[in-house]
Amino acid sequence: MSDASASAPASAHKTITAAVLVIGDEILSGRTKDQNIGYIAEYLTRIGIELREVRVVPDVEREIVEAVNALRTRYDYLFTTGGIGPTHDDITAECVAKAVGVAIDVDERAVNLLLTRMKREDLNEMRLRMCRIPAGASLIENPVSAAPGFRIANVIVMAGVPRIMHAMLDNVAPTLETGVKIISETLEIGFPEGLYAAGLKEIAERCPDLSIGSYPSFGAQGYRNQVVLRGKDPALLAAGKAEVEALIAHLAAQQGAR
Amino acid sequence: MSDASASAPASAHKTITAAVLVIGDEILSGRTKDQNIGYIAEYLTRIGIELREVRVVPDVEREIVEAVNALRTRYDYLFTTGGIGPTHDDITAECVAKAVGVAIDVDERAVNLLLTRMKREDLNEMRLRMCRIPAGASLIENPVSAAPGFRIANVIVMAGVPRIMHAMLDNVAPTLETGVKIISETLEIGFPEGLYAAGLKEIAERCPDLSIGSYPSFGAQGYRNQVVLRGKDPALLAAGKAEVEALIAHLAAQQGAR
Repeated sequence: MSDASASAPASAHKTITAAVLVIGDEILSGRTKDQNIGYIAEYLTRIGIELREVRVVPDVEREIVEAVNALRTRYDYLFTTGGIGPTHDDITAECVAKAVGVAIDVDERAVNLLLTRMKREDLNEMRLRMCRIPAGASLIENPVSAAPGFRIANVIVMAGVPRIMHAMLDNVAPTLETGVKIISETLEIGFPEGLYAAGLKEIAERCPDLSIGSYPSFGAQGYRNQVVLRGKDPALLAAGKAEVEALIAHLAAQQGAR
Repeated sequence: MSDASASAPASAHKTITAAVLVIGDEILSGRTKDQNIGYIAEYLTRIGIELREVRVVPDVEREIVEAVNALRTRYDYLFTTGGIGPTHDDITAECVAKAVGVAIDVDERAVNLLLTRMKREDLNEMRLRMCRIPAGASLIENPVSAAPGFRIANVIVMAGVPRIMHAMLDNVAPTLETGVKIISETLEIGFPEGLYAAGLKEIAERCPDLSIGSYPSFGAQGYRNQVVLRGKDPALLAAGKAEVEALIAHLAAQQGAR
């Protein structure tokens, strides 16, 4: 206890994991192109939470409940997007309550939030659906259109509209436990993957604390390869990066001599 | 049997379902923004296959094998993207073989495809990894960079690079069983969702064969709502659309009178 104040924050060496569950027929039909997965992935990486799995399911109760339970029990946090509006196809709140095993009813805190934007006589039955919050949940404010998201246990329920989701994520982020941040280095490689794959494999085997990936892509400027090194320790990361740079320099000399 | 030739194609009234499995650390870290889910979703809808679930998992054998088995047993087809290159982090082919329970080895057909693009002495050990194909699989040609995808049982394994994936999907699509096509109608609604949600719910209840969704979004032109009706029968779809149009006209008159 005596040196607790001098030690690093409790979670500085912990790994905190998460999953994302995207809820909506419109993503599966291709009508709406998801913009939330990549945004949340980048956001969580930045604050020190490791995104480990993503699922997209339709607006079907059984599918949502099953996915919520599979993911909330497996990871530290589950973030959902979509299905919290006023229309009949918005069933996320009911499904999360069912999955977590709590009651759900109109929540006066949510009603009060909606009343900041509309008159009581306009708060019709369908709009009140947006105030149905599982018992025991905390609300996540929505500065865009008032209807809140919520957090119950480790499940964070957000809107699907990107602008609203961004604001909700900003609001909930300070309340989350975060772990050690993953840092990364990206190297542009001017060779085909097949030339450096063997050397890269050896480096990956020598650096078990780093995750090393190779990513080809085609852009306006043609074929392009990037090697990305990811890890938690800056010194190990720098050492791994130096190894890849040495490999590439060696291969460049070989290619020049060929 | 006698009127078989006069009947519709065997699958014209069937529903054919699919899942997509995106494999790659780079999507979960947010480094790479997935472009494949939306493309495949739209493509499958167009050809008459219903995408029912998507998962994204990291480059970890246990996770890939588990997801392949969960999805291939549940849907008619499973499409995977990513992890079929020459580097050590490309483990999709091995994982699919393991999940399906077949052997995997260097496949001469795949070797011959690579030899159309490179000399035999350049076909090093790591590049030969791209020729490792599960026993019994058929190959899916890759006109961009030669290294093939493959299909084994109902699992279709494609590259993660969008340009290559598009070509592979074009190549495999004609071999797939397709079902009745989902058709849709989209209506732009000039009201907040809360005003039409009750009427829309009633229409949805009267039209159990249609899937009716309401989608708010924010664009450069501000708030915007769309109602999308989806179904298999053109007449039912037209009737549902007419009901929504009547609802909106009714609400517009009410609003005008208010």
